[in-house]
Amino acid sequence: MKINGTLYRSVWVDEKDEWSVHIIDQTLLPFSFKIRRLTTAANVAEAICTMQVRGAPLIGAVAAYGIALALRTNADDKTLEETAEMLIKTRPTAVNLQHAIQRMVTYLRPAPSNKRAQAAYEEAARLCEEDINTNKAIGTYGVDLLQAIAHKKNHQKTNEPLHILTHCNAGWLATVDYGTALSPIYMAHDAGLNVHVWVDETRPRNQGASLTAWELKSHGVPHTVITDNAGGHFMQHEQVDIVIVGADRVTRTGDVANKIGTYLKALAAYDNALPFWVALPSTTIDWTITNGLKDIPIEERSATEVTHLTGHDPQGLITQIHIMPDTVKVANPAFDVTPARLITGLITEKGCCAATPQGILSLFPEMKEYYTESL
Amino acid sequence: MKINGTLYRSVWVDEKDEWSVHIIDQTLLPFSFKIRRLTTAANVAEAICTMQVRGAPLIGAVAAYGIALALRTNADDKTLEETAEMLIKTRPTAVNLQHAIQRMVTYLRPAPSNKRAQAAYEEAARLCEEDINTNKAIGTYGVDLLQAIAHKKNHQKTNEPLHILTHCNAGWLATVDYGTALSPIYMAHDAGLNVHVWVDETRPRNQGASLTAWELKSHGVPHTVITDNAGGHFMQHEQVDIVIVGADRVTRTGDVANKIGTYLKALAAYDNALPFWVALPSTTIDWTITNGLKDIPIEERSATEVTHLTGHDPQGLITQIHIMPDTVKVANPAFDVTPARLITGLITEKGCCAATPQGILSLFPEMKEYYTESL
Repeated sequence: MKINGTLYRSVWVDEKDEWSVHIIDQTLLPFSFKIRRLTTAANVAEAICTMQVRGAPLIGAVAAYGIALALRTNADDKTLEETAEMLIKTRPTAVNLQHAIQRMVTYLRPAPSNKRAQAAYEEAARLCEEDINTNKAIGTYGVDLLQAIAHKKNHQKTNEPLHILTHCNAGWLATVDYGTALSPIYMAHDAGLNVHVWVDETRPRNQGASLTAWELKSHGVPHTVITDNAGGHFMQHEQVDIVIVGADRVTRTGDVANKIGTYLKALAAYDNALPFWVALPSTTIDWTITNGLKDIPIEERSATEVTHLTGHDPQGLITQIHIMPDTVKVANPAFDVTPARLITGLITEKGCCAATPQGILSLFPEMKEYYTESL
Repeated sequence: MKINGTLYRSVWVDEKDEWSVHIIDQTLLPFSFKIRRLTTAANVAEAICTMQVRGAPLIGAVAAYGIALALRTNADDKTLEETAEMLIKTRPTAVNLQHAIQRMVTYLRPAPSNKRAQAAYEEAARLCEEDINTNKAIGTYGVDLLQAIAHKKNHQKTNEPLHILTHCNAGWLATVDYGTALSPIYMAHDAGLNVHVWVDETRPRNQGASLTAWELKSHGVPHTVITDNAGGHFMQHEQVDIVIVGADRVTRTGDVANKIGTYLKALAAYDNALPFWVALPSTTIDWTITNGLKDIPIEERSATEVTHLTGHDPQGLITQIHIMPDTVKVANPAFDVTPARLITGLITEKGCCAATPQGILSLFPEMKEYYTESL
């Protein structure tokens, strides 16, 4: 996507710069746009842990390059295994990270060590290209959905925009490019559909206000930031037509782990008979599990994410402030699980489906071996 | 309630100080404890509008004193009527404000003008005493409820605390003293019940993190602050036993307007089969309306409440920062409406009841005239 007219991806390799990996430091957005150069797997792990890069698809892609960076220095089996293990531990909830690293290890293990670094860069690049194509496909299927809802609601006649609510950031910054939940929205906007996005600010880290609003503004898509508390009210008052969110891990039965608070929006959509869709690449599906609430580990993050906030002070300087009493006890689960029963459907690179074993299997029949339960 | 060993109420008159009215400036908590002296009705209106005082019962009490302050200068009918009208306009959602002012006007209109100021102070003081007694009664009925749930859950045997989730601040700072939703919690704690409170931070103004956490800490009640997004997750994982919130306006049918986001917590409690109770003085009931979603006006407040936050900077100075891009569009509804169907019951000064016309009428049979619909 473009930033001030220049095309960017959220991760890229500069071949002239010793094959180092470049990312946009997302912790500084929207206040400052800084590119960070990563040269080691430890750099990559730190960038993932501190959420300089975040979003399930993107952390998978950056971690793949982390393997490549490690192999550049030492390409033996031990380095490959240890780097993989170290990177997998950086964040527990998103499954894309595991899938990306497993793919790299499986691909690289048979290669002779003198070819491994080069092969790793090539495989990571392929993974990125696939992510982009996947997100384009999600956009294409999702835009049909948006057009259908707009048509049903007769939006063109009333000239009332199609109101889409989203939580957190599932835009191009959460992927290599285009995004998952935002991909259909960009396409709909580009196709001339009158869309308006309610952006949940998404406490504690405010990825909605900081990243989604920044992305939508850069692309010219009308949007309004609201507190995480407000979405239910707008749904009750018929100001929301559809909810679309991303996902960090989806069970083969359709339960969805996503940013904390997603479950509350799904409940509100359900209570108001509104469509609630989840956009995801199939690499977000964990085929091995069936019960999201029991089987998906939920990352507990630092209390300081809740107690401290960054912004501009009155002099325009970027300042971090402490917004609660020093001694307050805080709990900070980063994700929650939305049961499949609350989800209207999933938008994947293979098409849309119900959030059910049958629905998912209809798009991915090659995964039939995992469906041992009777359907 | 006590602050560092000294007894305070949230509004009081210092008779030695020209009968001026004193409040705690709640916009500065928890960072700074400052008492503000109000000498005119305009001071009172400003304190209410800027939320130096907030909470449905407290704004009613402070507004009653606003009438008294106005009459001290000029006690004619015109001043009485105009002050009443001006104060009623300060905040539209809470009905206690209207009830308190109507009560003052009805009481003062027949009085001769040379007695009115004195009579106004006396009536405002009575209103405050009644609020305190009401909140004590709410506490007494509510504590029975908490004890019963604790007994049922066999908490004493397991030594697991009774986990109560609350939203916003319905503590003593929201009333003249003791609070509504927090009154039963204080009593339960004082009676030796092992309680733990999940405190929703309550964006945008963070009354949970700033006021509820400060109150609970002052009283020694164990608590943990969480983002507004997190409560549903803790309910799914059996970490919440009951939700208790306050109210800004309740219809005679049991719909509840309360701080934005309350509806989402009610949905989550309902989805997890958890009790969801609303604590309120009967002055919060609007006997004239039946449909909360249609009939309760929802105040839209300034975007800066969402875009700016106050806290300590690294040097310990109180600083306000801007946490979003300058140009971002923001919507900021201050309240939402929880339909009666999601509410387990109401805790009032007359006892507990179902959130239904029949339930409310059983506690307030004198209001039968309002129940024109067939029950």
